[in-house]
Amino acid sequence: MSKYVIGIDVGGTKIAAGVVTKKGEIIHSLVLPTLAKEGLKVSLGQIYKTIEGLLAESSLCMKDIGALGVCAPGPLDPEKGIIHNPPNLPGWKDVPLVALIEKKFRKKTKLENDANAAGIAEAIWGAAKGYKHVLYATVSTGVGTAIIIDGKIYHGKNGMAGEGGHTTINFDDKKARCKCGNNGCAETLTSGPVRLRLFSTELKKHPAQKKKFMKDAAGDLKKILMTDIAKAARRGNKLAIKAIAEEGELLGIWLGNMISLLDPEIIVIGGGVSLAGEVLLKQIRKSIPRHTINLNASKTPVVQAKLKQNVGVYGAASIVLE
Amino acid sequence: MSKYVIGIDVGGTKIAAGVVTKKGEIIHSLVLPTLAKEGLKVSLGQIYKTIEGLLAESSLCMKDIGALGVCAPGPLDPEKGIIHNPPNLPGWKDVPLVALIEKKFRKKTKLENDANAAGIAEAIWGAAKGYKHVLYATVSTGVGTAIIIDGKIYHGKNGMAGEGGHTTINFDDKKARCKCGNNGCAETLTSGPVRLRLFSTELKKHPAQKKKFMKDAAGDLKKILMTDIAKAARRGNKLAIKAIAEEGELLGIWLGNMISLLDPEIIVIGGGVSLAGEVLLKQIRKSIPRHTINLNASKTPVVQAKLKQNVGVYGAASIVLE
Repeated sequence: MSKYVIGIDVGGTKIAAGVVTKKGEIIHSLVLPTLAKEGLKVSLGQIYKTIEGLLAESSLCMKDIGALGVCAPGPLDPEKGIIHNPPNLPGWKDVPLVALIEKKFRKKTKLENDANAAGIAEAIWGAAKGYKHVLYATVSTGVGTAIIIDGKIYHGKNGMAGEGGHTTINFDDKKARCKCGNNGCAETLTSGPVRLRLFSTELKKHPAQKKKFMKDAAGDLKKILMTDIAKAARRGNKLAIKAIAEEGELLGIWLGNMISLLDPEIIVIGGGVSLAGEVLLKQIRKSIPRHTINLNASKTPVVQAKLKQNVGVYGAASIVLE
Repeated sequence: MSKYVIGIDVGGTKIAAGVVTKKGEIIHSLVLPTLAKEGLKVSLGQIYKTIEGLLAESSLCMKDIGALGVCAPGPLDPEKGIIHNPPNLPGWKDVPLVALIEKKFRKKTKLENDANAAGIAEAIWGAAKGYKHVLYATVSTGVGTAIIIDGKIYHGKNGMAGEGGHTTINFDDKKARCKCGNNGCAETLTSGPVRLRLFSTELKKHPAQKKKFMKDAAGDLKKILMTDIAKAARRGNKLAIKAIAEEGELLGIWLGNMISLLDPEIIVIGGGVSLAGEVLLKQIRKSIPRHTINLNASKTPVVQAKLKQNVGVYGAASIVLE
């Protein structure tokens, strides 16, 4: 069996690829722009170029590679290897990406959506190493989940299981209209941009606090991240503490549902919002037991993802090692 | 391998046991009172008596029986065979029921909570026969789920997975306080008694409609069931139609979550509320696609449970055939 696999993370902006060892080391990597606006043909060409460039730069040839793993934004069909119509890959419609790559490179290829790929990477190399039943949650611009059962991604009937970001937690909340068309989804209540927008609104109402925040977490208000709010919270900024507490409470309600339903061994939280770290995790851990019937919920570890940078490349590589 | 198993359904009021064939026929059955108020020792004695009585009446002896399956209300530990502390079995605290029965009858015994048992029975003999990934939902006084993956009950880490009735769907709803301590659980919004109470309140506000309803579905207002409301709805009673539509909408929100997360092949709905039949199922099927991101949701069959009477005995028997 080959020592290496290649992981290819196809995003709306860039394509990141890496040669990854079975132990989870990226020994070579290459990033090219997706050029998504130039259409399917150009973007496909960029994917091929990334793979070819990676091999050239690493002085490897395809026979050194065990398999190719690709992750991309959904909706997609992992079993058939088809990308349906992701909002940030315009012009892509039911693209048989696995068949195209396998034809071009004559190498076994697998496809997975990015949340599932990140989840399985955490289970193989990251924060959930050694655990069989894992719930991975990514909280970022989008909110998603991966359900890992017996060390494998659970796909369900249509390959569409694990869309936990679009489960309703507050259906009466008419203001919480989600892009998916539903009301009160976890994503529309807990995503990074939503929480940052609410925080900015709060800051504007409290000029003194705003001044204090801008000092605590220097920078342009439009460019702040959850990590800035977390930093200010750690320094005692009251509005920041409140914002983190609210996000923790909401994520706890949502993850409480996941525990009631799935009783995982561990919950791993990734994505931009998770970079807020312990100050947020503490609030989540406080909230969960109040929102689940599972008596052992407080014993379920809730931890930050370990694979932060290059999680897409790790994820894509991990699906061919799953 | 023996031709028969025995299924024992331990409830708060009665113990029902049956000799069940592998094909799912109950060839003999016996029901005794649990005498739960007389304490653990008496109730245990009643369980033993039910098993002994069943064997005597059916002219079978223990060597004709492959195994014993027991279902009971949770919380319980199916792996260790221990019943923790069910609200309707007072005085029961961490009772090692499997060990006790195995010691007494020297026969392999398994324990399962009643929702999971009913779910697996539906998958083996009922409405989900032939399906591998099943979501079973029971909507009655309690609301519960069973997650069946690859034909087996998914238990999670602590044997407590599948508590879908206690997932939050409307956390801001302060009026929807659940017995489990949480706000806005599916159970506290969709259970039979809750919907019947709301319907009675509506009826009282509309005397003309009330008169019509009492004619449509004759009987004491305190004794009405969801089946009576369904009957009135089928006859065109507006309040009844509205009540069924509301319950269907709520169950659709809840089951939409299940599809987003689990993407099952089929959803089977059991329990007293499900006896309302097609008039309710139609509303559920209408609601689901509006509350899930799963593009194939409208193709997921949502059907009524098939095993209505004796579902507990079937359930208990099925766990030793799973």
